[in-house]
Order: sequence, then structure tokens, then C-alpha cells
Amino acid sequence: MQLNVAQKLIKAHLVSGEMIQGTEIGLKIDQTLTQDATGTMVMLELEAMGLERAKTEVSAQYVDHNVIQVDHKNPDDHLFLQSATRRFGLYYSRPGNGVSHPIHMQRLAKPGKTLLGSDSHTCANGCMGMLAMGAGGIDVAMAIAGEPFYVRMPKIWGIKLTGKLADWVSAKDVILELLRRHDVKGGVGKIIEYYGPGLENLSAMDRHVIANMGAELGATTSVFPSDVEIQRFLKEQDREDDWLELVADKGATYDIDEEINLSEVVPLIAQPSSPGNVVPVSAIEGTPIYQSYIGSSANPGYRDFAIVAQIVNGKQIADDISFDINPTSRQLLTDLVKEGHIASLLQSGARLHQAGCNGCIGMGQAPATGRNSLRTTPRNFPGRSGTKEDSVYLCSPETAAVSALTGKITDPRTMDFKYPKVKDPKKPTIDINLLEEPLPLEKARAVELHKGPNISSIPQLDEMPDHLVIPVLLKMGDNISTDEILAGGARVLPFRSNIPEISKFAFEIIDKTYYKRGMESVSQGGHAIVGGTNYGQGSSREHAALAPRHLGLRVALVKDFARIHWQNLINFGVLPVTFVNADDYDKISNGDVLEISNLRYSLNQGREFPITIKGKNYLIRVQHALSERHLEIVLKGGLINWIRDKQKNVTNI
Amino acid sequence: MQLNVAQKLIKAHLVSGEMIQGTEIGLKIDQTLTQDATGTMVMLELEAMGLERAKTEVSAQYVDHNVIQVDHKNPDDHLFLQSATRRFGLYYSRPGNGVSHPIHMQRLAKPGKTLLGSDSHTCANGCMGMLAMGAGGIDVAMAIAGEPFYVRMPKIWGIKLTGKLADWVSAKDVILELLRRHDVKGGVGKIIEYYGPGLENLSAMDRHVIANMGAELGATTSVFPSDVEIQRFLKEQDREDDWLELVADKGATYDIDEEINLSEVVPLIAQPSSPGNVVPVSAIEGTPIYQSYIGSSANPGYRDFAIVAQIVNGKQIADDISFDINPTSRQLLTDLVKEGHIASLLQSGARLHQAGCNGCIGMGQAPATGRNSLRTTPRNFPGRSGTKEDSVYLCSPETAAVSALTGKITDPRTMDFKYPKVKDPKKPTIDINLLEEPLPLEKARAVELHKGPNISSIPQLDEMPDHLVIPVLLKMGDNISTDEILAGGARVLPFRSNIPEISKFAFEIIDKTYYKRGMESVSQGGHAIVGGTNYGQGSSREHAALAPRHLGLRVALVKDFARIHWQNLINFGVLPVTFVNADDYDKISNGDVLEISNLRYSLNQGREFPITIKGKNYLIRVQHALSERHLEIVLKGGLINWIRDKQKNVTNI
Repeated sequence: MQLNVAQKLIKAHLVSGEMIQGTEIGLKIDQTLTQDATGTMVMLELEAMGLERAKTEVSAQYVDHNVIQVDHKNPDDHLFLQSATRRFGLYYSRPGNGVSHPIHMQRLAKPGKTLLGSDSHTCANGCMGMLAMGAGGIDVAMAIAGEPFYVRMPKIWGIKLTGKLADWVSAKDVILELLRRHDVKGGVGKIIEYYGPGLENLSAMDRHVIANMGAELGATTSVFPSDVEIQRFLKEQDREDDWLELVADKGATYDIDEEINLSEVVPLIAQPSSPGNVVPVSAIEGTPIYQSYIGSSANPGYRDFAIVAQIVNGKQIADDISFDINPTSRQLLTDLVKEGHIASLLQSGARLHQAGCNGCIGMGQAPATGRNSLRTTPRNFPGRSGTKEDSVYLCSPETAAVSALTGKITDPRTMDFKYPKVKDPKKPTIDINLLEEPLPLEKARAVELHKGPNISSIPQLDEMPDHLVIPVLLKMGDNISTDEILAGGARVLPFRSNIPEISKFAFEIIDKTYYKRGMESVSQGGHAIVGGTNYGQGSSREHAALAPRHLGLRVALVKDFARIHWQNLINFGVLPVTFVNADDYDKISNGDVLEISNLRYSLNQGREFPITIKGKNYLIRVQHALSERHLEIVLKGGLINWIRDKQKNVTNI
Repeated sequence: MQLNVAQKLIKAHLVSGEMIQGTEIGLKIDQTLTQDATGTMVMLELEAMGLERAKTEVSAQYVDHNVIQVDHKNPDDHLFLQSATRRFGLYYSRPGNGVSHPIHMQRLAKPGKTLLGSDSHTCANGCMGMLAMGAGGIDVAMAIAGEPFYVRMPKIWGIKLTGKLADWVSAKDVILELLRRHDVKGGVGKIIEYYGPGLENLSAMDRHVIANMGAELGATTSVFPSDVEIQRFLKEQDREDDWLELVADKGATYDIDEEINLSEVVPLIAQPSSPGNVVPVSAIEGTPIYQSYIGSSANPGYRDFAIVAQIVNGKQIADDISFDINPTSRQLLTDLVKEGHIASLLQSGARLHQAGCNGCIGMGQAPATGRNSLRTTPRNFPGRSGTKEDSVYLCSPETAAVSALTGKITDPRTMDFKYPKVKDPKKPTIDINLLEEPLPLEKARAVELHKGPNISSIPQLDEMPDHLVIPVLLKMGDNISTDEILAGGARVLPFRSNIPEISKFAFEIIDKTYYKRGMESVSQGGHAIVGGTNYGQGSSREHAALAPRHLGLRVALVKDFARIHWQNLINFGVLPVTFVNADDYDKISNGDVLEISNLRYSLNQGREFPITIKGKNYLIRVQHALSERHLEIVLKGGLINWIRDKQKNVTNI
């Protein structure tokens, strides 16, 4: 059978299931990527698992999100991450190096490999002929510990590229074109695979731009072949040996077929406040802007900055414009400095910021109230810029640059000068500071984790008892979100690496007494909560499961669950069950005591089992949807215990 | 009579008083400087005064403190400042341009002029043969409105410089030597004037370094002559016409005499947590460091960065060091880029930050908990770095650079390579973006102030009634600080430009009901507070007077006042009085109603007057220490009303 690139990658890494669309498959993970905002939790999970050493071929921890240091918390996190990478045998990229995705591409990405990352733009490395996917923190921790990653087999969506981009049009416009056609849910359940003669004119970094924003289509990932352009790129990075050709078989087919004629793509722009709200730049020309912002993993390459520098070279940006340049990495910045582009940018009036994610994730460069900001970043969700009622447009570096000159949204094709040609630096810099290599095992074993005052180990979670007699501490209605279970925001998130502290905020929006009552329940066998439909909707944050679990939550009994929170409850050893008869919801009151006997026996008997409401002498039937693996995990007290035991067994053999 | 430089400057600007040490003199102010952290309030004060146009020769508003934008507040402030400078005829330096003091020196400083700035390091421009002083925001607002600045005639402290600095020793070590000798109060009530043959070997920017940290000695200011070196500097900045020779008369004398032989100065370092805690670097060699930080107005020059770049060129900084480079200005950064120094710094492992004050005032680059940070900044007060329990050392760029290489505090003289020679750029960049010039009057008149949601005009304050019947809302003990009157910190300071909002925090540490009771008192003639000794000690923040005044405070009756808060009360129209008989303090209770009749008559009669405690039928005698000008101000309802009326009268003539 002729396979396309995505199928080849999946087939080569399949450890369970079959490649039947919609069914669960398990994939071997070769590489992982974590960034600092999600990485501290991942490292604490590795510690709690008792991991001896990363079992992947490559695992890299980048510091790029929280690089503004206004108090001790971020720098303390950096030191913790550095110590953890040394302990567990990971690569470490320190603050100042720059954004994870392009650095990973330059240093560690390998065609033919899988990459799992705790960042939604991990898919960017699909440009390298990799299967690169974003996932939750604990999924990545499990992958580092050698476990497969489970996902439903996606549809493969082939996009044939033909033609060649016109002057003033670049890769960003290609992915904006796809967002224009299919909006932000168009890629759900799909892998986008690009192929065809149009690829010849797209550099590896152009492909990165396109793969990166596959995340905005909701796609599982995006995949490009590994062709001679990838070979050229790896050679330039002094890594030609890592190259492997990986292209679709002749005659390979796709589940969905589509074509983009690059010659027909025009400058596009996503209006506030969705990446899918795309129109031609020409349709909204003249809209005044306040900010023009260049950078992020959605336009990370040398070309993306050099073209801007060449457009503004010798000119002045319009009055009143904040022209913000966020270099991708120290390596890139060095080349831009050496080739004179930074001088051009500065002399035109630019503000040069440190290398990192910065404004792309609301860490600096927030726009003023009610002013329009033009950005080359991947997302413009409301408030993501840091300013609550923001007005952010997403566009190409070309559009951002010419608009900085005119002070208003401008179609770059209307400029009265020639489209500049960017020449790559003759000898690109290789920044040897970018990555600290994993320590050898003996040295690694001796490393102690460095924990600042705000970092606390994940509390030990015990196994699920076989006999539960537990009170209902909260009875809630429908559509309880994870924000109500555990709020986000600046008041709560600083405690992201400290479960005992962050637990104090659990359910506080619903009932301020929950924390105290939960703490008291711990020594008495724990407690249950009861909810309505769509329980746990919203943000995927794992703390919404872990914090109540730390406070003794054993059983969540609801009408039905939101999918990700259901998975998170299992991961942290909470039993998620639903009413067989939804009317029984009315039978339970706050404070009722639930009794479950012979839990293990009951769970193994089938999907349904009884719960007694003590005192009321009433018996209700509940059901679970756990797989055998899920059952094991819940009974062990969560994934961390499960994997720790598994590792122990392996070591004992 | 032969005059020194300080005396010449004072004499040329004296508008009231005599040059008798310790007595009050009034000085005409030629130039003002405001930065953004203090500037928003100054601009709101200009608005409240109804100022038509700045009356100084030059007034410049810089944006350098709050340039990290994580929400709308800082960028909204920037737009407000820009609109205000346009309205009132000021220069405006936008975010990204860099630090006020060196930019002012390069663009606007003029030998022979006075400069008043709402930043304690305004004294840095004393390097230009100016009388440059830091002051409170409203003092600077008054200067912009054309009022003199009042100060007690200081002693003039002549420091004769001889000899020549050795290799590896630079200007920073000279001022650290002075701090070693005299500690942080050694300059109080004094102007430090430098002279002598040693000056020949100190560039204008070297002198800036020394004058800047005169603030750390507590000096009124520091003064250097305007000699051929200043002529050379101005020529380099394309401003040779602004040069004027200003040197001490032959035979001029000083109130205090001291000498520093530059040849004998060694590399010095101020240990945590005071700039006066100075020892030779050699005395603490080997102390491990976590951070090496280059930048700030205390080492702002091209040389200060270039020497660091040349020291680390071709080498790698030690593992685990955060090597933070904070460029002073866009202009300087451009030169450092063009001359290859930024490339050297990056390749050695540096983190390059945006131009501005940044870490020097705790806005970024905070160190990790318990780790040692080496900085070229002027101050290491506890927590100023942003990290509460920090450990900050102050040193020269040379010491910071070599210590970055070794990973520990290192005397630069021990290096096994030659002291690099820094060559100035052949044609230094003049960044034409640095300053937006004042608008012509007609255009300025049409400008509307741009106020984001967090910026609110200063509420109108009414005149002092002649007959007061007001309740005592708070009776407090001794040593009440301005932090207790109005807290600082991240919870309160974001409302710095919004008096109605910030007033909600007034006295809340002492009595949470004060705000409500104060608001209620406003429509009933206001209220009084009673305190013990040293009332209003601590931070000089003006909000501690303005916020209670906004809530109806009319009279502060205490045992005695801290000096600056006393002045601030007057400035905002609160009558500060003390007990003639301290025992009367015990006669007043919270809630008592005080009655003062014929206030104007009483105040003009003499220092003492009676207050009746109503109901108790008890009469106490109080006293005031107000000058005639003070009296006028208090009765008008504060400085803003006073100057507004004055301007109106001038216009009417």
C-alpha cells in the first residue's frame, strides 16, 4: 500500500491499536519538548514518579515564556528547571536563548521522529518531516518516562501546493488562507499534510510558519515531507547527518484533498479576535494602528526579520507607532546584528526586546486600551496580548512592516518601492550556548533538585481504598467549568508549582468553606462531589483535578463529564462516575454520606455498580467509562503512582 | 570674590534669599526632566493648575521606568504622557528610547543651566556644568509653571582629583571610593564639586557616572566644570553651539576640602544591601555569583558596554550565569551593534534586554532567591531588584564582566590578558527618534489629554473655610509612617494616576472604615486626624497627603511632623499643627468635634491659636510653623490652586 508521510510516521511508531480513523492508537514518542510555563509541573511529576532518567531519545526543556523577572518566582523556576533537566537527563535551554520551537528545529528535530510537547505550537516541527504534537503536561511526563502517547487516529488531509508566492506575499499568508477557508475548527481530528510542486519555493522556515499555525485550525498536527530543502537546512545547522529523506509514496492518497495555488494567495490579515477571522489586507486598508509587532514562533526565521529590516531601512516609522521587535533566539539575533539588519530596525525607530515568547503570550508589549495592534504572532484571542479589551490583528512581516511605515493597515503591494530580496547570511551563527546537553547518568544521579520558596513537590497520593464511606462536600449544577473548580489568573497561577498552596483556591468561587472541609476529610477517607451535565468544561488545566484530589476528593459523581477534565481526574486517581438514572441526581443532598463496598470487584464486574446513600437507606446505580488501563491508574491513585510502580517492577526484573 | 562652579551656578539663578549656608534660597529653574513613574502625576498637576504652556527653557518627559507592558496600564500612561507633553509644550521621549539622564545629557543638557527632575538621579547631569537636582513631583510641576525651587543653601564640598586611573579601574570605582569614605549620608546638605588635574583623564560620561551616584551620598547635587572635554562631547553630539566654558575662578575656595588621587583607586564593590557598604573587590574574591548585570544610568556610556564586550569577546561566560545587558538608549545600542560589540556580547552568552531602566528599578531581571547578583546599577537597597530577600553587589563594568567569565566575584586586575582599549565609534549615531520636539503653541492648545481607564484628573480641592467644625476621624500613636497612611506596593501603586481610586487605600492598615467615613465628611466640612510624634515618617510619596485631603482632611494635629510629609500636607492644602502642650494629646478622643473660628485671623496673628473641643467645652492651644508663602498655599487649598490663581492674575494683567 502506498503511504503518505503522516501514515509512514504513524506506522513506524504504532505500539497499540490499528490505523483505523477514529479509533485509539498508541504511539512511541522519540522526542519531547517542554517550555517553562508548563515544564515545572512536568518536572515535579517526573520527581513524583521517581524517574531515574528520561527514556526518550531526546527531551529538551526550554525557558522562553516567563523570562520577565519582576520578582523571585520566574528566576527560581529557571533554576529548578535547570536542576531537574540535569537530574533526569534532559537538554536545557536557558532564558535568553529564545523560543522553543525554532530552537528545537535548529538543534534537535530529526526527520522521521515523533515529538510530543507541552505547548500547543509543538506542531511547528512538523515542518521537519516529524510527527510533532502538543499535549498536556502529564502526557509529556509519561512520554519522558517511556510511555506511549494515545490519540484517536486522525483523518489525513492532503493539501497540494502549486505555483509560487508573488512578491510581498509570504508563508504567513498561506496559513491565513487556510484559516480563511476553514476557520479555527477546520482541522479538528485531522493531520494536515502538505505536498506538491509548490513546496520547492518554501524554505524549511517558511514551512515552520505554516505548520506552527496548524494549531489555530485545531489540527492534530501538520506534516511536511523531509526533502532536499530539509537537507539543506540541516547542513546549514551543521547537522547534515541527521537528515533522512521522508516523502509520500508515489500514488499515496489522502482522506481529504485540497489544493492551494500559491500564485493566487494575496496578503491576508486575521481581524480581532480570532485567527479564523481572515480577510484580504486590501479590504481593511487605512485602519489606524498603534503597534506593529514582529516575532514569535509563527514568524521565527531570519527571513521574517530581515525582510522587515530591508523594508524599513533608511526610513522612519510613523509617529506614535510602537514598533516592537521580538527576536526569536540569541542565534538569530546574532545573525541579524552581524548582517546589519538590527541597525536598520533601530534606526527606523524600533524597540528591541529580549529573545523569547514575550508579547505573544502576554508577557510584555501589551497594547494601550482601545488601540489596534498588528502582530506576526499566531493568536489574537481576546485579552491574550495582556490588555483585556485588546484589538489584535495577525498578518505577515511584510504587512506589519509597511503598516509601521504608514501608521495604518496597508497592503504591502501598494508600496512604491521594489520588494526587497533577503539574502541568507553566508555563514550562519551556531550559538553553542543554546543548549546544555544531558549530564551522564552518574553525574545526573548526584544532582539535587533546586527548589525556591514557591516550588513544592507534588504531594504523595495514596491508592484508592476498596471500601469508601465519604461525605458529599459539594453538590453543584450544570456546566461547572475548570475556572470554577480552580481559577486561573494572576492571583492563583503564581502558585502553579505548589499544590498545597494552590489547593487553597479549589472551588472557592462556589464555596469558600470547601478547602477547610476538604482538608479535614483527608484523614477520614476523603470525600465526593456531585455535579450536573458538562462537568469540568473549559480550560484543560490539570490543577483542577490535582488540587481537589490533594484535598481528599475520591469520587466525582455527575450527569456527564467534559472530556479533558474526565481524563485529568483519572490521571490523578479520582474515580469519575455518572448516574445511570439522571433523576437520582435529585436524591442526593450536600452532606449525604456515600458508601461503596468492594470497589475493585465492582469495577471489574462491568460498567455499572451501586452506591448506598447512608442514613437515607437509598441505593443508586452509577456507571463508569474507564478502560482497563484507566482502571489500573485510578486504583493506584493516579498516573504518577502507576508509572512509579511500573518502573519499579522493571528495575526489579 | 572668587567663586567656585557651584557658587557661580547658584548666583546666576538666585531669585530669593542669600547665599548663606543653611538658609532658604529660591532658584530659577531653566530645565526640567520627568520620567514616566513620577511624570503622570506631574502632568495631572499641570492640568489641574490650568497651565497654558511650560515656562522653562526646556522641559522633557522621558519614558524609561515602566516599559514592560503586561497589561494596558503602562502603555496607556505612555499615551497620556505623550498627549500631555504635546499639550504643555514639552519634549517627549517615547518608550524604547532609553534612560532619561544620559539622553538628557546628549540632547538637551547645557552648561550653566539649572535642571530640576522628578528622579533622584537627576544630579547625573551635574557632569555638564549644570546645577541638576532631584525633587518631588509637585516641585517639578511648579518649576514647569515658572516657579522657583526652594532649597537650603548647601555647603560646597570641593574634591580635588589628581593622578590617573590604573588599568581595570574606572569611574564607578571613584564614586565607590567616595562612598567607602563617607557612606550614604556623607553628602547630606552638600554640593560636591569636582576639580583638579585628574579631570583631564575623565570623559564626560565618566563624570556622569560619578555625578549620578552622588545621590547615594545624599548630596544635594554634584557639579563638574564645563571644560574642553564637555566641548568635545557636545561637538560629538552635533551641539557644539550649546557649549559654554564654566570653571571655578582662580583662588576659589570650598567649605570642605578633600582629595582623591585617582592613581590609588582600586576596584571596589558595594556589598548587600547598601551602596555605602564598600570594600575592595579583592577582599571578597571568590564569592559565587548567579547574575552579572550591565547597564543603568550609573554606567550608561558607550565605553561602559564596549569594555565589557571586549573583555568577554571570544570567550564564554561561566555556566549558570545570567549575563544581563540593559542598553542605555537606542542610540547607544545602535553604535554598539555597528561596532560589533553586541555580537561579542551575544556570542559570549548574554541576554540582551530592551533599552530602559529595567532591572535597576526592579522592572525585570530580578535575581533568584538567595543568589548573588553583581550589578553596575547605583543602588542595592533590600528588595529593590524585585526579589524580596535579594543579595545585590554594586561594581564597575570591568568587575562585572570578569566575574561573569569566572562565575565568582573576581578582581579584574587578576585577569591574564591585557586591559582592552575602547575606541569611540568614528561617527557616533545621532538617533533622530530620541526626542519629539515641543509643539508650537497654536497646535499645542488644540491637543486633548489622552486618558486611559486608569488615569483620572486630580480632583478639584476647595479653599480652606474660615470656620471649621470637624470631627476627629482617627487618633493615632507615635511614628505613623506614610506607608500606614497610604501603602505602596503592587496592590496600591497601579492606581498612582487615579486619586479617587487610590484614596480607597488611605489609612486602611490603621482603620478600614476611614475611607467611608472620610467620604461622608466631605460634604459636612471635612475632618481632622490626631497623631503622636514623628507623624508621616518614611517614603516621600505625595499621595499620602493628597488621598486623605481628597477624603476631606482639613487639619492634622500631632505632637510633631516628619519634614517631608509636613511639606506635602501644605502642598495639598491641609493645615499641619502641633500641640503647644503635648499633654493635650490625651484630652482628645476619636470622634471628638474640633472647632476653629476665624482661622485666617488666627493664623496671621502669630504662631499659636486655640481650638475648642466641642461638647467637652475644653480649649487647647496649637501652633503652626508656616511661612507666609505656606500660609497662602494652605488657605488657597494647596499649591495647585495657588499657582492657578497666580497664573490667572498674570494673564489678567
